Amino acid sequence: MPDQGTMSNATRSETYAPLAAAMTETAEAVSARLSDLIPPVSEPEGRVLDAMRYSALAGGKRLRPFLVTHSAALFHVSPSAALTVAAALEMVHTYSLVHDDLPAMDDDDLRRGRPTCHKQFDEATAILAGDGLLTKAFEVLAGPAAHSDPAVRCELVWELANAAGGHGMVGGQMVDLMAERGHGGVALDVPEITRMHQMKTGRLITFACVAGPIMGKAPARMRACLNAYARDLGLAFQIADDVLDETGSAQDLGKTPGKDAAAGKTTFVSLLGLEGARERARLLSDQALAHLEVFGDEADLLRAVARYVVERKN
Amino acid sequence: MPDQGTMSNATRSETYAPLAAAMTETAEAVSARLSDLIPPVSEPEGRVLDAMRYSALAGGKRLRPFLVTHSAALFHVSPSAALTVAAALEMVHTYSLVHDDLPAMDDDDLRRGRPTCHKQFDEATAILAGDGLLTKAFEVLAGPAAHSDPAVRCELVWELANAAGGHGMVGGQMVDLMAERGHGGVALDVPEITRMHQMKTGRLITFACVAGPIMGKAPARMRACLNAYARDLGLAFQIADDVLDETGSAQDLGKTPGKDAAAGKTTFVSLLGLEGARERARLLSDQALAHLEVFGDEADLLRAVARYVVERKN
Repeated sequence: MPDQGTMSNATRSETYAPLAAAMTETAEAVSARLSDLIPPVSEPEGRVLDAMRYSALAGGKRLRPFLVTHSAALFHVSPSAALTVAAALEMVHTYSLVHDDLPAMDDDDLRRGRPTCHKQFDEATAILAGDGLLTKAFEVLAGPAAHSDPAVRCELVWELANAAGGHGMVGGQMVDLMAERGHGGVALDVPEITRMHQMKTGRLITFACVAGPIMGKAPARMRACLNAYARDLGLAFQIADDVLDETGSAQDLGKTPGKDAAAGKTTFVSLLGLEGARERARLLSDQALAHLEVFGDEADLLRAVARYVVERKN
Repeated sequence: MPDQGTMSNATRSETYAPLAAAMTETAEAVSARLSDLIPPVSEPEGRVLDAMRYSALAGGKRLRPFLVTHSAALFHVSPSAALTVAAALEMVHTYSLVHDDLPAMDDDDLRRGRPTCHKQFDEATAILAGDGLLTKAFEVLAGPAAHSDPAVRCELVWELANAAGGHGMVGGQMVDLMAERGHGGVALDVPEITRMHQMKTGRLITFACVAGPIMGKAPARMRACLNAYARDLGLAFQIADDVLDETGSAQDLGKTPGKDAAAGKTTFVSLLGLEGARERARLLSDQALAHLEVFGDEADLLRAVARYVVERKN
């Protein structure tokens, strides 16, 4: 297998160099926009804004902002407006991490090698910081910087709220917690775990990919292609996550691997086996690519993302 | 003083009978609308929707919905649209109570005589239910049932998010927690406690009163009058709350009185004394009434509310 490993490394660096540069560029731009949108204040409520900034500016891959800006570019949307929408989405993603890390939820002390929000501040501040980030996201989307047309802004607010709420991310988190704690009585099977991830992480990734066609008032079939791309991409990403949790090194992951397996949690790997899960992720990645056929070279970075999510080491 | 008490009781029943009937009517209508907007589902995520319904349908005075529907009526806004906006605002108010009651925040076991959300379900579910309610509020405001004009819906989303976020309710909650725990080092003085309450509860009450003029596209001066009315009303309400916490009976309040005093918390009563606080509340109530002069008989129920908040027993 060393040959394959070398080849794969060569392919990776060749294919991913432009992607890596583009992802870094988006990550820096969205961090700057987030910092502008959540300025620190000197008044006593500054503590909650500090906590919001601490978590929102902690870095990370910024995959969702990347999908927003690069889907939007296909329809020649204003890059600044796309970045504003990307920042709003990242606020929602960040709030979900802050609340998920709380002692009553996943009880995590570290995220991206730094203390989680409730460890750095305290639990009450972390709850409020999450609430503040979620609220701010909708303020930003409803404001003129997100789009010149109020009808488009309303659609963005509606779609993001629908994706993040009880029938989307919050609902998926509920299902995940119940499965973990046995509230539901039975472990999830493949259709159930697929549905859970589709809700918990898939819906926000879908929003990231359809924000562009919404902002560009693209024809319905274009939006449908990106919607289908996002569904396959999101699931591939999640399955790859389960594989990495099983096979990755602590150094590559920046967190302790094997946590899910140790907790006896049902994952795609526990259901499909390691090779079965890898194969499913590759299949989904190929499907995601097929949905981009309608787009030309302009979608090459979105294609690279679909390959990257299943081959990444962290 | 018994004469004054009797007189005051007579005045109260005379003045407040139409108000009580109107408040009951709004409370029933908003509960029905909330139940429609958050239907139960049989899927596993149903647990979080059950928790959202449990807290949103727990009753209460529904003061904010009343202010929305009756301010909206001044501008002949569609009653159904006003009720939708009122329900969205009540979702935000309810989420704030669910999160405030959490062990890491105020750690309350009872609300309105029933177990708090985290006692009835569990902490994780209560955190998610609060998140779900906050998210749903913006989905509702961005949808066509809130208003036919998307520009108005955007303004409603923006105003509510601004009122509820880090510079509004969430910020006020942060200041309150810091004062309570001595994070800030010093107890609040009158201007500071006024600012804290203006953020923590005042901003949502102001939204309740300006949603009507926003929806009715009323002239700026009309909106300014209702804004000023709301500021005075909100503060009067809060001061009256502090007075009731000191003087009310457990039976009237439906909760244990004296909790703030026992916790050594700074209140308007601890700063101004009981008579000083009562006098301040009455003054603010009179000011609130003065801001309604521009409106005719149609604002009589809003006038009655301003009197009611400082004379209520619970």
